[in-house]
Amino acid sequence: MKPHLLVTAVQQSCGADRQTNLDFSIAKIHEAAAAKADLVVLPELHLGPYFCQNEDVEHFTLAQAIPGPSTAILSAAAKTAGVVVVSTLFEERAPGLYHNTAVVFDKDGSIAGKYRKMHIPDDPGFYEKYYFTPGDLGFKPIDTSIGRLGILVCWDQWFPEAARLMALAGADLLIYPTAIGWDLQDSAEERQRQLEAWVICQRAHAVANGIPVVACNRIGFEAAPDAGRGILFWGNSFMAGPQGELLERANETDNRLLTCRLDLARGKRVRQIWPFLRDRRIDEYGGLCKRFLDAD
Amino acid sequence: MKPHLLVTAVQQSCGADRQTNLDFSIAKIHEAAAAKADLVVLPELHLGPYFCQNEDVEHFTLAQAIPGPSTAILSAAAKTAGVVVVSTLFEERAPGLYHNTAVVFDKDGSIAGKYRKMHIPDDPGFYEKYYFTPGDLGFKPIDTSIGRLGILVCWDQWFPEAARLMALAGADLLIYPTAIGWDLQDSAEERQRQLEAWVICQRAHAVANGIPVVACNRIGFEAAPDAGRGILFWGNSFMAGPQGELLERANETDNRLLTCRLDLARGKRVRQIWPFLRDRRIDEYGGLCKRFLDAD
Repeated sequence: MKPHLLVTAVQQSCGADRQTNLDFSIAKIHEAAAAKADLVVLPELHLGPYFCQNEDVEHFTLAQAIPGPSTAILSAAAKTAGVVVVSTLFEERAPGLYHNTAVVFDKDGSIAGKYRKMHIPDDPGFYEKYYFTPGDLGFKPIDTSIGRLGILVCWDQWFPEAARLMALAGADLLIYPTAIGWDLQDSAEERQRQLEAWVICQRAHAVANGIPVVACNRIGFEAAPDAGRGILFWGNSFMAGPQGELLERANETDNRLLTCRLDLARGKRVRQIWPFLRDRRIDEYGGLCKRFLDAD
Repeated sequence: MKPHLLVTAVQQSCGADRQTNLDFSIAKIHEAAAAKADLVVLPELHLGPYFCQNEDVEHFTLAQAIPGPSTAILSAAAKTAGVVVVSTLFEERAPGLYHNTAVVFDKDGSIAGKYRKMHIPDDPGFYEKYYFTPGDLGFKPIDTSIGRLGILVCWDQWFPEAARLMALAGADLLIYPTAIGWDLQDSAEERQRQLEAWVICQRAHAVANGIPVVACNRIGFEAAPDAGRGILFWGNSFMAGPQGELLERANETDNRLLTCRLDLARGKRVRQIWPFLRDRRIDEYGGLCKRFLDAD
């Protein structure tokens, strides 16, 4: 583990042309590396528009094996740039078996590991249960040359259990590639509540676990391919320190590289000041493995 | 469960005279009830100064049985005022066996239930492990005439597990009587980080569980009885709705009644929009009952 990490989150829109998106990702990897980044995080499913706005069997053609053609290109970019890269891809594991999968490339271009999104949403406009089988690799951080990365993806960010399990497994930081946005038919007040809930929920994972958090979201309006209302992805990518303190936060409209220097040694100190891990009542947490604690 | 609850949190300083403190609590119970409150929450250990700033065997004389003399008075007040009351007391369960215990009085003056603080801190100035045995009643909400109350106490607020277990057991809201403050030798920046971490961590419990949160803290500087540096209790009592949205927040200096109308029906709607309970990966949460997930 390095005591400090320079981390870059790539907040971006994702257009219809996949090659353009891939070229953009490669360019940003090199740009971040030129600025000495140790780690570059790309948003969830950054190779194209968010295709889960409807259920369309044709969209399965977008999936690919891991390793596969896209990982080959990203791997080469990580190696050339000499930077660790987190990419989230639509994984074809077998015919009829697909995942939403984060892949971590180490600086030497090797695949350090992958994380298959464990919590899969399904809401109007976010029909992910149709496309993605819930992950079966568990909540396991991925070891790299710069540290142990606790990768979680989008919907996972609402579950304190996921963050905790990554921390208990020794993650040095939590990383959330994301594709989340607004339904423009919601009121301005509701949209604000949703955005702030998303921010504080992830900042609280930092607090509860004494580790930094990186959230990388896309921006831009993407129209629905059918009768849906479309999604305005809300950006607001941010990084927080181990007390949940905001280090940097993007706005909702701009393509940008969000770069922070994360002090991993400070997290160790914070855990000494706030020794939550010392006091967890593991003898009384069995109910967390239940769906609900009905009276009967 | 009532669809709406008018909830009052009593943010207050706690002086050296216990009778004065008790009289103050009774007066505030009546004042809140006169304003139609359904529920009055008093800060943690509101009968006196925060005595855990040092380890002194004489302080055990402050403990009392539950039910006991203080609960008799609070019970009568709850009945006369016709309001549900949450009080946190130093419980003597047996010689040599003490707890930090929240007692819930229903509107008829009966004791609806008690919650013994499960997570016990121990930090310079907060030597609670000396005084309090960790609770053995589990994370069980308390049924009252106005709803099922998820009472948790102070240090519990940093543990998402506690909030989740209360929610899974059907709590309608989470209530945190608290005594937390600053070491004035910490920098202004550190104090601000601590306060904001405390607020967002509890707001995030509301988000993750789709239920309102009530936090009730004390105010005022209390000098240490020995070589300690004393604690400036930071107030900032607040209530948040089921998306973590702040409804009301007190400042750090004022005695005040913080009153909000909590819409419990909205929590149900929020859980339909954000169905986190639907998607929890209970098949993969076993590690939460481990101390740490060491590689070996």
